Amino acid sequence: MDAVLRQSKAVCPFLKKASPATLRALSTASHSSAAAPEASSALIATSSPCGGALSKLQLLAGRCPVMSKAMAVQATRIGSSRVANVNMGYRGVAASLSASFSTSAAARTCPRASAPTPAAMRTARLHTSRSRDARAVDGHVYNDKAPIHAGVPKTAKVTGGQNFDSGVAAAAPVGMQAKFDYEGFYQTELDKKHKDKSYRYFNNINRLAKDFPRAHMAEKEDRVTVWCANDYLGMGSNPRVLRTMHETLDEYGAGAGGTRNISGHNRHAVHLEETVARLHAKEAALVFSSCYVANDATLATLGSKMPGCVILSDSLNHASMIQGIRHSGTQKIVFRHNDVADLEAKLAALPLHVPKIIAFESVYSMCGSIGPIEAICDLAEKYGAITFLDEVHAVGMYGPSGAGVAEHLDFEAHRQGRPRGTIMDRIDIITGTLGKAYGCVGGYIAGSTQLVDMIRSLAPGFIFTTSLPPATMAGARTAIEYQMGYAGDRRLQQLHTRAVKESLAALDIPVIPNPSHIVPILVGDAEVAKQASDMLLRDHQIYVQSINYPTVPVGQERLRITPTPGHVKEFRDRLVLAVDSIWNELGIRRTSDWARQVPGGFLGVGAPPAAENNPLWTDEQLGIAQAVQELKQQQQKPNGLVETLLAQEQQGHAIASA
Amino acid sequence: MDAVLRQSKAVCPFLKKASPATLRALSTASHSSAAAPEASSALIATSSPCGGALSKLQLLAGRCPVMSKAMAVQATRIGSSRVANVNMGYRGVAASLSASFSTSAAARTCPRASAPTPAAMRTARLHTSRSRDARAVDGHVYNDKAPIHAGVPKTAKVTGGQNFDSGVAAAAPVGMQAKFDYEGFYQTELDKKHKDKSYRYFNNINRLAKDFPRAHMAEKEDRVTVWCANDYLGMGSNPRVLRTMHETLDEYGAGAGGTRNISGHNRHAVHLEETVARLHAKEAALVFSSCYVANDATLATLGSKMPGCVILSDSLNHASMIQGIRHSGTQKIVFRHNDVADLEAKLAALPLHVPKIIAFESVYSMCGSIGPIEAICDLAEKYGAITFLDEVHAVGMYGPSGAGVAEHLDFEAHRQGRPRGTIMDRIDIITGTLGKAYGCVGGYIAGSTQLVDMIRSLAPGFIFTTSLPPATMAGARTAIEYQMGYAGDRRLQQLHTRAVKESLAALDIPVIPNPSHIVPILVGDAEVAKQASDMLLRDHQIYVQSINYPTVPVGQERLRITPTPGHVKEFRDRLVLAVDSIWNELGIRRTSDWARQVPGGFLGVGAPPAAENNPLWTDEQLGIAQAVQELKQQQQKPNGLVETLLAQEQQGHAIASA
Repeated sequence: MDAVLRQSKAVCPFLKKASPATLRALSTASHSSAAAPEASSALIATSSPCGGALSKLQLLAGRCPVMSKAMAVQATRIGSSRVANVNMGYRGVAASLSASFSTSAAARTCPRASAPTPAAMRTARLHTSRSRDARAVDGHVYNDKAPIHAGVPKTAKVTGGQNFDSGVAAAAPVGMQAKFDYEGFYQTELDKKHKDKSYRYFNNINRLAKDFPRAHMAEKEDRVTVWCANDYLGMGSNPRVLRTMHETLDEYGAGAGGTRNISGHNRHAVHLEETVARLHAKEAALVFSSCYVANDATLATLGSKMPGCVILSDSLNHASMIQGIRHSGTQKIVFRHNDVADLEAKLAALPLHVPKIIAFESVYSMCGSIGPIEAICDLAEKYGAITFLDEVHAVGMYGPSGAGVAEHLDFEAHRQGRPRGTIMDRIDIITGTLGKAYGCVGGYIAGSTQLVDMIRSLAPGFIFTTSLPPATMAGARTAIEYQMGYAGDRRLQQLHTRAVKESLAALDIPVIPNPSHIVPILVGDAEVAKQASDMLLRDHQIYVQSINYPTVPVGQERLRITPTPGHVKEFRDRLVLAVDSIWNELGIRRTSDWARQVPGGFLGVGAPPAAENNPLWTDEQLGIAQAVQELKQQQQKPNGLVETLLAQEQQGHAIASA
Repeated sequence: MDAVLRQSKAVCPFLKKASPATLRALSTASHSSAAAPEASSALIATSSPCGGALSKLQLLAGRCPVMSKAMAVQATRIGSSRVANVNMGYRGVAASLSASFSTSAAARTCPRASAPTPAAMRTARLHTSRSRDARAVDGHVYNDKAPIHAGVPKTAKVTGGQNFDSGVAAAAPVGMQAKFDYEGFYQTELDKKHKDKSYRYFNNINRLAKDFPRAHMAEKEDRVTVWCANDYLGMGSNPRVLRTMHETLDEYGAGAGGTRNISGHNRHAVHLEETVARLHAKEAALVFSSCYVANDATLATLGSKMPGCVILSDSLNHASMIQGIRHSGTQKIVFRHNDVADLEAKLAALPLHVPKIIAFESVYSMCGSIGPIEAICDLAEKYGAITFLDEVHAVGMYGPSGAGVAEHLDFEAHRQGRPRGTIMDRIDIITGTLGKAYGCVGGYIAGSTQLVDMIRSLAPGFIFTTSLPPATMAGARTAIEYQMGYAGDRRLQQLHTRAVKESLAALDIPVIPNPSHIVPILVGDAEVAKQASDMLLRDHQIYVQSINYPTVPVGQERLRITPTPGHVKEFRDRLVLAVDSIWNELGIRRTSDWARQVPGGFLGVGAPPAAENNPLWTDEQLGIAQAVQELKQQQQKPNGLVETLLAQEQQGHAIASA
């Protein structure tokens, strides 16, 4: 670490206390704008001769009695006549600062053999992009006498951020006559992805409606079993859904023909939104191109419109929510994943009258954990917040109607048609997808009439885009109604999930424990995860995509397995054997390895069993309580219990559709 | 205007020179963050006791020798013990400042009889949302002793921004014990929409595949003719497209089942992207949920990744581009619509080496103007910028292959299969939709391999969302290929457009002149535009949605008519008669009224004919040059020329499919 930084950290209460996220945010560049001449001229005097790019940390430093002196010392050391380089020198400090706090960089240097620490993982970074917003500036803030990027030293090409920032102490205006090398920049960005093994190779997977869950690859005869799709219930090949879509295509054509306001509003939209509202027992619903867009548009609109709004966001929230919050331009407070105490502390520190949104998920898709919905509702009421619950991975899958986890938590009340006062009823905004358990595409929000009408009226992501096709909306509605009336698919899905988890556990395969239908197998290395995925596909005709950064933090790479009602015993047996053999071949850590190497386990792997990981669907709800009792009395070891149950099922005991 | 402000404006060079946009941006609230204790503590001393919400103008004022004194004076006047109210007093000044500069507010108060001035219209605001970005803050910046929103005076409910800001001088901490009234806030926002007549009522329009361009309303027997859809060529009911979709549905099911990376990548995506790349003669293409998402994700990613990137944006760009630029967090410079000189001045003021993106459209959908693509390519090359061209309303509609306006500009070269060196070849990034002329849904970008691979690898809006359904992608590909091989639809569409424009012109109906297929009829008042639309639907069974704010600026409300190949003479005659009678009934200004009332015309209406409004599809390209010559020799008045041609066509002269 630079001497100036060491010295500063010793005396500066800010540097001592600031979080890594804060330091990272501060180390991004900040252009002094023409809109603030008083401010910028003051700063220019102390730090910049050009009104150009400065990191926020630099801006602060110019005002700080300690850092401004440190900068002066450094300026003298480098050469006081080149004031521009003082900036770059300080930028260098900022860069080393942020680098030393960058856990993803740190994680990448971890040797594969040593497990990353849970603390490092907690602060791992997801979905990075610039955290500043666009500002309109006048063209004349630039002039050729004062180039804005004094740090660009190259004489021929300028090929990207890294070169840009690292050419710190070189002479300034030489490279200014060269145009920016765009293609070189793109290549640099791609090289980074290759280098850190996060570059993605898509597999060509053509899921066959008449042979679910099988698919063919590029060649039709090249068949594989898909074990990682989000068509959790096989609704994408449900005959009733397909029939509806065929009929709608014939009658109403391929596309909607316009935005919802201009010829794209129709009976399919009306009926779908009515159905979604009914599903969640809300007053109204609104359909979007996707739930990515629904989350982004809704949070961005609410956060930007409500005066002084603060959004409290679970640290594992999906990228769509993170973007929506970013796009809102309002304040974000991240609370630790599923940590109600941390959330309460953060809520309690906010004045009661300030509008607050607690944004979280029911099923977190990459680890399968489930949000503490009821406790969050309690906190929201106590502290005057509203709740924004993403049920994307839960709709169709939980509850007597398939409305999600919130419905599941009051199973009996909803089964009896009494939604009022339930946890689902207390949630202000539920968002969901039509593209996973419902097998189609699209997303939605459900909430009060006023809320939905306001989002409908104000959200650009809803207003300025073509509606979903009539056939898609009609098919999705059929899927929702089918699942509202029939629980057999999701029950069977749960039994298959239990069977797979049991079999993997029996072989010491490190499944990240969770109460949901997700089966995440921890690998912990991007390259090895991809190798395992490639081998499954090539050697075993099993398709399980490896999940790498930025979908999960570096060091938490995994294989994410999603059983469906179609994954019958034959498929399950093959999967488990294949995973076991690959774990041997590649020498990947097993559960007992994690338990030995990381005290207390990592991501729950190798940790003692915890009650919160008991399946959300209870034996009673699955209609297997009695059968399980009987089996437990008969056999000694619990492994294979669910397989035995499923075998009984095949022999005519219809437990799953009970 | 407040005395302090008057006094300040007299002495402050900043207040004197700052643009309304700047002042508006400055008057938004800015929370001093825990990340900047040095800065905020300095400010707190002069302006704020609580580290809470301050407008940027307030922050600046604290540093300004003049304004800080003015604030002190005001503080004394109000009562020096209530320092919090000084903030609000100053905020009051900022609020009145921004109100007096708010052109949309000004426009709304224009009486209907007096036409808004073009100058006012130029600065009219589109797609407003907060211009700041989200910042992570620690919960502890707030504490209950120092409420952040000292201006909230209500004892019971806090219902929104206006109340929030207007309760300036009231006593402070009384209302802090009340929770924020969310439902009241939503209602307040909706009330605003109702009040300024921008509240939208969707019409239930069910377009009939077997009776294009007819549709039924909520009841099946309630038939109307659709005159405003973007299914410009009727491809949504094209039998070949529908057959492909039926087959794909049967074989591959309803949905893709995952993101592109996780089981959602398939032959349909591969083939569609290959087809799009071929259409635009680019190396590669990438498909998104919509072109809204394509524009947003691509500009946000490029702008945020390229160091110091500046995005130059046409002032009439679509909301999706505006949002993408905003979300990039980089600098935006708006150039006047289609003004090459203004763009050059702004490019010339930027250093050569700085990465720049010129973002613009080919056909601007709401006025039908066409961007100066070649001139912009020239400027891009001269100043080292890349071009980002949105061809959303042009793909399928222009050029020998339907690749858009860029292709159309080198008609012969492309017809002969020689794309290299053409204008389309020089464009770096082309974006387009599958949801308008191609009749389906979805959007795309096309460009170099590296560019597309980088966006594929980095854009959250691409990475974290479910792929389009196989049937949608297959249908869209069929539509593109159909239009690549057959120019008859777009030629007939052009002839129908010319016929409608001729007939309306003959009746003095104020069509905004343009060279494209769009027929925008100027109304200039939100309420009247809606009335006209409602009367067309109710009395004439013609559906033309009124286009109001935020799709067009206040004062530029219009009816936007989109002829298709299916709009045969019977439909055209009824439309023109209906519009004429409604113009009489409602007393809406005609072209000659605009010419008389606004010197030089408004939006081109009432202005002398201009060469740039000659149809982009020439008589030669339409294959009607000779027929037009003959007709012109036969008849005296030019009106009805195209109708006569079309009548000949019906009699067997196949001009359109020549």
